[in-house]
Amino acid sequence: MPELALLEQVVDKVRPLLGQGKVADYIPALAGVDPNKIGIAVTSVDGTTIGAGDYLEPFSIQSISKVFSLTLALTLYEEHEIWSRVGKEPSGQSFNSLVQVELEHGLPRNPFINAGALVIADLLQARLGAPKHRMLELIRGLSANPSLVSDKIVAASEFEHSARNAAIAYLMKSFGNFNNDVDTVLQSYFHYCSIRMNCADLSKAILYLANKGTCLDGSQLLSPVQTRQMNALLATSGLYDGAGEFAYRVGMPGKSGVGGGIIAVIPGDMAVCVWSPELDRNGNSLAGTAALEDLCQRLGRSIF
Amino acid sequence: MPELALLEQVVDKVRPLLGQGKVADYIPALAGVDPNKIGIAVTSVDGTTIGAGDYLEPFSIQSISKVFSLTLALTLYEEHEIWSRVGKEPSGQSFNSLVQVELEHGLPRNPFINAGALVIADLLQARLGAPKHRMLELIRGLSANPSLVSDKIVAASEFEHSARNAAIAYLMKSFGNFNNDVDTVLQSYFHYCSIRMNCADLSKAILYLANKGTCLDGSQLLSPVQTRQMNALLATSGLYDGAGEFAYRVGMPGKSGVGGGIIAVIPGDMAVCVWSPELDRNGNSLAGTAALEDLCQRLGRSIF
Amino acid sequence: MPELALLEQVVDKVRPLLGQGKVADYIPALAGVDPNKIGIAVTSVDGTTIGAGDYLEPFSIQSISKVFSLTLALTLYEEHEIWSRVGKEPSGQSFNSLVQVELEHGLPRNPFINAGALVIADLLQARLGAPKHRMLELIRGLSANPSLVSDKIVAASEFEHSARNAAIAYLMKSFGNFNNDVDTVLQSYFHYCSIRMNCADLSKAILYLANKGTCLDGSQLLSPVQTRQMNALLATSGLYDGAGEFAYRVGMPGKSGVGGGIIAVIPGDMAVCVWSPELDRNGNSLAGTAALEDLCQRLGRSIF
Amino acid sequence: MPELALLEQVVDKVRPLLGQGKVADYIPALAGVDPNKIGIAVTSVDGTTIGAGDYLEPFSIQSISKVFSLTLALTLYEEHEIWSRVGKEPSGQSFNSLVQVELEHGLPRNPFINAGALVIADLLQARLGAPKHRMLELIRGLSANPSLVSDKIVAASEFEHSARNAAIAYLMKSFGNFNNDVDTVLQSYFHYCSIRMNCADLSKAILYLANKGTCLDGSQLLSPVQTRQMNALLATSGLYDGAGEFAYRVGMPGKSGVGGGIIAVIPGDMAVCVWSPELDRNGNSLAGTAALEDLCQRLGRSIF
Repeated sequence: MPELALLEQVVDKVRPLLGQGKVADYIPALAGVDPNKIGIAVTSVDGTTIGAGDYLEPFSIQSISKVFSLTLALTLYEEHEIWSRVGKEPSGQSFNSLVQVELEHGLPRNPFINAGALVIADLLQARLGAPKHRMLELIRGLSANPSLVSDKIVAASEFEHSARNAAIAYLMKSFGNFNNDVDTVLQSYFHYCSIRMNCADLSKAILYLANKGTCLDGSQLLSPVQTRQMNALLATSGLYDGAGEFAYRVGMPGKSGVGGGIIAVIPGDMAVCVWSPELDRNGNSLAGTAALEDLCQRLGRSIF
Repeated sequence: MPELALLEQVVDKVRPLLGQGKVADYIPALAGVDPNKIGIAVTSVDGTTIGAGDYLEPFSIQSISKVFSLTLALTLYEEHEIWSRVGKEPSGQSFNSLVQVELEHGLPRNPFINAGALVIADLLQARLGAPKHRMLELIRGLSANPSLVSDKIVAASEFEHSARNAAIAYLMKSFGNFNNDVDTVLQSYFHYCSIRMNCADLSKAILYLANKGTCLDGSQLLSPVQTRQMNALLATSGLYDGAGEFAYRVGMPGKSGVGGGIIAVIPGDMAVCVWSPELDRNGNSLAGTAALEDLCQRLGRSIF
Repeated sequence: MPELALLEQVVDKVRPLLGQGKVADYIPALAGVDPNKIGIAVTSVDGTTIGAGDYLEPFSIQSISKVFSLTLALTLYEEHEIWSRVGKEPSGQSFNSLVQVELEHGLPRNPFINAGALVIADLLQARLGAPKHRMLELIRGLSANPSLVSDKIVAASEFEHSARNAAIAYLMKSFGNFNNDVDTVLQSYFHYCSIRMNCADLSKAILYLANKGTCLDGSQLLSPVQTRQMNALLATSGLYDGAGEFAYRVGMPGKSGVGGGIIAVIPGDMAVCVWSPELDRNGNSLAGTAALEDLCQRLGRSIF
Repeated sequence: MPELALLEQVVDKVRPLLGQGKVADYIPALAGVDPNKIGIAVTSVDGTTIGAGDYLEPFSIQSISKVFSLTLALTLYEEHEIWSRVGKEPSGQSFNSLVQVELEHGLPRNPFINAGALVIADLLQARLGAPKHRMLELIRGLSANPSLVSDKIVAASEFEHSARNAAIAYLMKSFGNFNNDVDTVLQSYFHYCSIRMNCADLSKAILYLANKGTCLDGSQLLSPVQTRQMNALLATSGLYDGAGEFAYRVGMPGKSGVGGGIIAVIPGDMAVCVWSPELDRNGNSLAGTAALEDLCQRLGRSIF
């Protein structure tokens, strides 16, 4: 567990990078965010949370929600029911590409590219009466913050610009790998993506990944084996086309979102969340990645 | 460090899998190997080596040599000289595919697919007077076994069937990413691949990956940071198209070869080598992968 | 203009091929067609029509409708308005592939693959108040057969199995190359495809392609230059992945449909339509292609 | 047959386009050509040749030689021996791409992309004692010009920059679709490409394509059916990625070379050769294509 002062040093170190990336602007609701933000929070396996910078300011979690979706699916389905519909390998292609999905007959490479996350959302839709509500409930519980909500304006805006994701879902449907109504699943999917959380919330929420599946409140969300497997998937596929570079520089299983957040864990030790809205060319937070890299160097810790 | 009895249990557990895979047969010299072999050796960071099954029987290390090639290159070149010519990302394609190399203008995705390993071999050729000899010398030193040699019959046979690798090298040359004579580099490359070692040799030779860069003899081959980076690359790209599945099942950075060997490490703890010639559909040792999976489960250890 | 006896010889020659192909079965409404059918009709530029075999039996024109869609678009839009949204090159990929559309940023290769035909349907939707009615009206006029209708059961069945086409349309929408509501355009598109005509109707309807743009009733539908251009597009892209083989064997600009129809012309001479429901592996009528090949050989005519 | 004055009008019409294209510069020997050249020659089926502009100035025929290679192969092999090793379909990819060759297991799409032409060169190498000499002999005979030679400086320069073509040949060899020594075949291939001819020579040499296989000297080189098939292949695949556009604008089967030459025929009528060194973005002569387009418009002739 790092000292608070160390987190503040990390923030100071990477603050000069602000201005070098580009805020996601594919929907107006995201483009309006203040780019000059940088926050970091760490929750250790003993349950303590500390933070620095803008770590209490909420942001759109976007693709970080894919971690919670897969976790929820793992609690609802047998393993083979999931892995017969989505793979476990890095994609080697852009996060929203249809090429791989077509060439591999409707089977997405992994649950963290859009195609895979849409299959997971399809699975949740099939088995949950109110998937949007259930997801909020899960995340509120994990972060011990009952006030968390999804940003309806962002969700609506995502839905209005959802042609690419609709194309992916229909393509999988044409291969028999998508069962529910496309629009309904997209609505749920964008609802998950539009949940607003701050770094402290997120570092608490993902503590189970650092703690053999045990949550902040002591409940067991995933088994130790499932947790290890989830971390393995995050390490190989969690950062889109930048997974190799992220492992090389940071050395922690992690997941990024276009809202500028990145979560990462050192199993047995701590859960981290950084946030800075400007993205690098792979779509990952530029200052956020640098902060995680600096944190690992200062702590001399990584999984490698 | 596992007990010897535990290694023997692992071997007994996976022996029934023999017969389910397929020995590499693209060259006659490899096709003739006895398929009913399974060996495992572990070298701990304290320098002790134990083994079970056929762990003293030498085999062709094949692509495991790519780890030593990259290591040697890291000792000869500045980091940017290497990473401007080869990437760090999983390829998402077959190990010997030219598609990605063409689409990405001659830059291989990572140093462990064939294209990337050929670029590394080209780098070694440029800076070493006698690269084949230097590689043998390195590996002999790392494993404290001065009798190690390259199998000239295998190397010659590889060279005779080298059309695909020649195509890859010429394609990179057409993009300006290959500098030496193609045939000369291929000769060296196949020489590296044809080195014969047993599991004990290999577990000793890669100890530096588990030990922050420090070799069995106490010398520092890579820096701690370089070692961490190497392990990160192995975790994301070391097992071809099966890197995600391997991380999911085994949870150790590793590298496989078509000779049936796999090396893997738990940083700070131990280096492992398994060998069983029959391969799964991704070209990784079938029983060897199962042995590593079983070892991790019995030890309750993984990097995740 | 061939003699009637010659057409009958052609039909007799290829009849033994019945049973070697496979009727399209992606929708039940098409799968039910009697496979043992073979018909041919020729309309010469002097307006005479003759036919042999099942040339008076109506069938689903399917992709042959793409010829009429493009023709209609050419009468409604400036040339640059069309060719800025769809290319003129052979695709080199399956007729319903999304790969090329993604790699080329939403621009379909030509108007005869599904993606291109959907863009044309989108153009028609934008400028016509009642596109389905207008299309029927056009085709009724061209073939001098006011009783032609679209098969509502086939159209509905196509729409129910439209996931792949929906994926293509949404993908183009994501690149800004699709303007109308996807479902609305798909409804129109399937309506065009589901029009039922017989060989005689079709050979009359396409006479303008053999006659410098002049229709059976003497009206000028396309200019001579537009007609020449349309024939050029049909020659290079009219038969999906089999355009080269079709040119090699038959040597006429043509267009096929999965209903088993093929239209083809010898400019300045005659318009031909063949029909036989069983398809070859490229999705073109097997006996129909053979009939056109035989016809060209007997007449000693082709464009080459 | 056009009047000489008409050819001169064509040259005058397109001369203002000089300066808008780009001379091929991948080898120094080609880059040095004077860009301000435009020539056209027509040989009619009655044997008369007329020309305008720089039609008597020799240039490097480059890929136009692929027409003669395939013709020679057709005289040496059974049809199935050729078409089992190379396809007949447009490639949809760049002329020197390896992607399609790998995805389709070593089978090139057609004989006019580089991969296909190399397979044809491999076939010639296998059956001819002195293929370079035999090719020169053929072309000298066809154009009734015994002084034609290959430019040794260009051929040597091509060979020095042959990495991409070597990659293609080795890739096909890895799939078992290339039998002779790669360097030997490349030497022959570049020799064919480096033959120097002028527009008059070329329009005479290809007369057989306009004349049912009968050459200028009355001998029968190909059968009428083979000639028709060759023209079909040229129409669908003769202009690389620009075959569709060329058919749309010009409407003649044709073949281009990076030296700036284009040959084209109207079967039963005439053979044409244009030359202007500056290329468009598809690698076809910019002013040359425009000249053919203008010629067809003035004559009101095309195959469509």
